[in-house]
Amino acid sequence: MKALVYSEPQRMTVADVDLPRIQEDTDAIVRMVKTTICGTDLHILNGDTPEVKAGTVLGHEGIGVIEKIGSTVSNFRVGDRVIISCVTACGYCTYCKKGMYAHCENGGWILGHEIDGTQSEFVRIPHADHSLHHIPKGMSDDAAVMMSDIFPTGFEIGVLNGRVKKNDTVAIVGAGPIGMATLLTAQFYSPAKIIMVDLDEHRLRVARDFGATDTVHAGNMPKAIDKVYELTAGKGVDVAIEAAGFPETFDFCQKILAPGGHLANEGVHGQPVQFDLDKLWIKNVTVTTGLVSTNSTAELIAAVLKRKLSPERLVTHHFDFTEIEKAYHVFKEASRSQAIKVILSF
Amino acid sequence: MKALVYSEPQRMTVADVDLPRIQEDTDAIVRMVKTTICGTDLHILNGDTPEVKAGTVLGHEGIGVIEKIGSTVSNFRVGDRVIISCVTACGYCTYCKKGMYAHCENGGWILGHEIDGTQSEFVRIPHADHSLHHIPKGMSDDAAVMMSDIFPTGFEIGVLNGRVKKNDTVAIVGAGPIGMATLLTAQFYSPAKIIMVDLDEHRLRVARDFGATDTVHAGNMPKAIDKVYELTAGKGVDVAIEAAGFPETFDFCQKILAPGGHLANEGVHGQPVQFDLDKLWIKNVTVTTGLVSTNSTAELIAAVLKRKLSPERLVTHHFDFTEIEKAYHVFKEASRSQAIKVILSF
Repeated sequence: MKALVYSEPQRMTVADVDLPRIQEDTDAIVRMVKTTICGTDLHILNGDTPEVKAGTVLGHEGIGVIEKIGSTVSNFRVGDRVIISCVTACGYCTYCKKGMYAHCENGGWILGHEIDGTQSEFVRIPHADHSLHHIPKGMSDDAAVMMSDIFPTGFEIGVLNGRVKKNDTVAIVGAGPIGMATLLTAQFYSPAKIIMVDLDEHRLRVARDFGATDTVHAGNMPKAIDKVYELTAGKGVDVAIEAAGFPETFDFCQKILAPGGHLANEGVHGQPVQFDLDKLWIKNVTVTTGLVSTNSTAELIAAVLKRKLSPERLVTHHFDFTEIEKAYHVFKEASRSQAIKVILSF
Repeated sequence: MKALVYSEPQRMTVADVDLPRIQEDTDAIVRMVKTTICGTDLHILNGDTPEVKAGTVLGHEGIGVIEKIGSTVSNFRVGDRVIISCVTACGYCTYCKKGMYAHCENGGWILGHEIDGTQSEFVRIPHADHSLHHIPKGMSDDAAVMMSDIFPTGFEIGVLNGRVKKNDTVAIVGAGPIGMATLLTAQFYSPAKIIMVDLDEHRLRVARDFGATDTVHAGNMPKAIDKVYELTAGKGVDVAIEAAGFPETFDFCQKILAPGGHLANEGVHGQPVQFDLDKLWIKNVTVTTGLVSTNSTAELIAAVLKRKLSPERLVTHHFDFTEIEKAYHVFKEASRSQAIKVILSF
């Protein structure tokens, strides 16, 4: 079968690889229907996650149809249409018992990271009972793909970790896919302001369409910071969400926090950052980091079915899976292509 | 009257200054009975808080007797024995309404910082109704002095911000006064382990007396980190409390955190630190900072009266106020003097 295989930083190739087989009684084999590309895949290609071995099939998102199941899988049957969670959970370890599936001792983020992923015609899903979700009737394929990672991440690591609440002022620094998913789910809590910060005018326009109350162009950082203070009556924001993964965007966030503010880091970082404790020790701030646990997926699916969330709005481009290298290029060159999320169909 | 006056980094003098007067209807003038010296006073002398102006009387802790009150003060009368809270609160601004007295728009930490403090024969306390506490019968003077700052700070900024809970593994990095107050109040929640980390063998012995389950000498940092992992079955700690205020102690804390762990920063920092987001973005950690709001003082006083907390255990030295310069020296040279908290009597 065809799969996208990582070889070394900056290098990947579409290759013929062996079909995956059931290895454990708890496995399922899924025939992929649609997948997508994540900013994290670009971080892998950028060398930011050196633990990814050459020969790994990339991808941790997508939907498909169950082709085979192990003997103890009980929640799913062959032929079921499923959402693949980006995080694999055994369901019984200490972390799983706390809902911290991100740190499952027998799983976590392993797809397209430690084991072969979803940018492939077929994929093996370990611990299928806790790592797949049924696609409900009434949910579009594109919306379902957005449930694998981007929406749970934006919601859990941005909105919930940032403790966004009614009447808060919120800034989202980075208007890429994760920032947009955060923007859409932050609105569940009716904050007073959601200020979107980015370098790309097109993305800022889209953010206004998606419900941002204000947008700030980050071209000149000191000016952009002043603008955020101006928009918040000189106080700074209650919640700053870092949605990019660069030292500069983290720095932007720490500089705009009001006393008692929350800084929720969503970005994948390839290097340490400077944390201004000399200024922040006195400000009663909270900084959170996180890999998504996908423990909110059922809640997000329910919001989609009730038409309170339209995750397919993030999808800007469709490709056939055979065009995946082109799709990576389009996704990477988002400022030129105006891509947010790209869908690849098998 | 005599008062300890700050002049510039490394310089302070006992000087004759004017008696404080009632300036607002909400003020009280307190005749000091006992005061103490805080690590924060050493930070001021070290130049870490450049906003402190020459001529400021130092000190933000102590107990006394009310000498005069403004016309609208209703909770206190002349002659009342009171604990002076290190944080002044107006009681009606946005932050006070949320219990965030640290950020009171008309107060906050102003004593011995923006206005004259408590290392003085008399002190003016603005917003007296919300900034003083009655000393209950049955509480010793030494215990009462410990209620001004050190115990609320250890409890709120260490234990509560770090969300210490039953069965947690906790490390406290820094066995000075604030680390010790954290150690004593962390025990309210019955954590499985409290590991005390310091460079001073005497302080580590005291920490064991005070209830630390384990102590780690920090002389060789990589070895000390290994020791913490060994004590936590290779997982790291659920809660790391930074109780010193140095880049090295913050670094120690970030390196020993388990997935999902909390790092509560208590230290006053004079410079930025390196925050290892490249390793921590994926670990679902929470970092908090804070200046105490002293919204837990009543709860801590109740714990003392129920004999669940003995704050006077921190007091190692007593001096007359006229000996305050000697007391500063003893407090600063704690590794030689074995001082934790020193009491100055008027």
